[in-house]
Amino acid sequence: MAGEAETPRRRGFMVVCDGSNGAGKTTLIEALRRHLEQLGYDVVVTREPGGTAIGERIRKLLLDRNLPEMCDLTELMLFGAARAQHLREKILPALEAGKVVLCDRFDSATVAFQQYARGLDPAKVASINALALGGFRPDLYLILDLDPSTGLERVRQRGAALDRLEGEQLAFLARARDGFLQQAKAEPQRYKVLDASLPAEEVASRAVALVAALAEGRRAVHGFGAADT
Amino acid sequence: MAGEAETPRRRGFMVVCDGSNGAGKTTLIEALRRHLEQLGYDVVVTREPGGTAIGERIRKLLLDRNLPEMCDLTELMLFGAARAQHLREKILPALEAGKVVLCDRFDSATVAFQQYARGLDPAKVASINALALGGFRPDLYLILDLDPSTGLERVRQRGAALDRLEGEQLAFLARARDGFLQQAKAEPQRYKVLDASLPAEEVASRAVALVAALAEGRRAVHGFGAADT
Repeated sequence: MAGEAETPRRRGFMVVCDGSNGAGKTTLIEALRRHLEQLGYDVVVTREPGGTAIGERIRKLLLDRNLPEMCDLTELMLFGAARAQHLREKILPALEAGKVVLCDRFDSATVAFQQYARGLDPAKVASINALALGGFRPDLYLILDLDPSTGLERVRQRGAALDRLEGEQLAFLARARDGFLQQAKAEPQRYKVLDASLPAEEVASRAVALVAALAEGRRAVHGFGAADT
Repeated sequence: MAGEAETPRRRGFMVVCDGSNGAGKTTLIEALRRHLEQLGYDVVVTREPGGTAIGERIRKLLLDRNLPEMCDLTELMLFGAARAQHLREKILPALEAGKVVLCDRFDSATVAFQQYARGLDPAKVASINALALGGFRPDLYLILDLDPSTGLERVRQRGAALDRLEGEQLAFLARARDGFLQQAKAEPQRYKVLDASLPAEEVASRAVALVAALAEGRRAVHGFGAADT
């Protein structure tokens, strides 16, 4: 049993890539991973829901199109359970070991999709996120912003069948997009919005600059960096 | 998506059977079911974690002995997710339809096992239970009380392999027992403790009397009973 870790002594840093469906999160994460590894960082790429054996089991349940009866609150708590496990089993140990964690979606997605798009009570969403995170915050959220119809078109072009969450309506995705933008507006230092309609190389280049600034800032504060690990 | 149901207009009633492992919950529920059906009630027998397709998937995850890395908080949220689904998909509709719900374990088990035995922060347990239940309370909890070593011996005699939760130590089970007794002490009208070391017929007879009193009380208040449905 892993215990609580309300105030971890962190050495590495964590960057969340989140935003609209089809906006290019996977491509961006791969570009960031390559860049950071070239700089000598030890990088852990992970995703939500999932990231651990338990989390991936929960992910299957969440994305299962054959379970349309799932209540909003059940969905919210399953995301919370997966996140609690992911943080304690994988993310915090990686940060403690000085690694950089790149995560595809995180609590930002729960706020955008469950609260803004699904309409769940913000207090309930905040309560589950607070329990799961126990005071932890990622260092940077890169929010890929894209018109929902463009994003949905990109998802369809992949040829994959839409999962339970991707199969939602355009209006739902528009509300989620607004949820991401509202979070960025409320905390502009921690959330950076990237225009995902730009070419992937341009998006990656802007993201790399933001992550480089973050890494530089942490090196200045903590007196160590990739070269010291 | 099922919505919230904070203040359901209930017609049926719900009895939870809970308590020590190996104390005879299954036998007692069967005896109660037979008795209530003879009186003309429409009875739904269910269990936690589980009770729905989604809940049974969560149950498999919770009882899987191959996942020892599961964090306390993940476990708590999975119980919460299963309960949120169970209540909204199965229990509330049954009560609305005038049925009697007999449930093997419920939030009482989360308080006993996760809070008292596992040692989770009572505020976190209360927060998850409050979210899952949304103000709902069962009408009666029958707590089967048994010395943990006797209970464990009975479980072993069944010949079944212990699941992840049943495989806990005696000290853990003793703390859970205390957790059940403390809940009964705090709310003696709603929680009734039955001595599970007595013969099963005697336990069932006492339980039937308690449920009969509950049914009679509800008939007096609501002006209808099994005969009217």
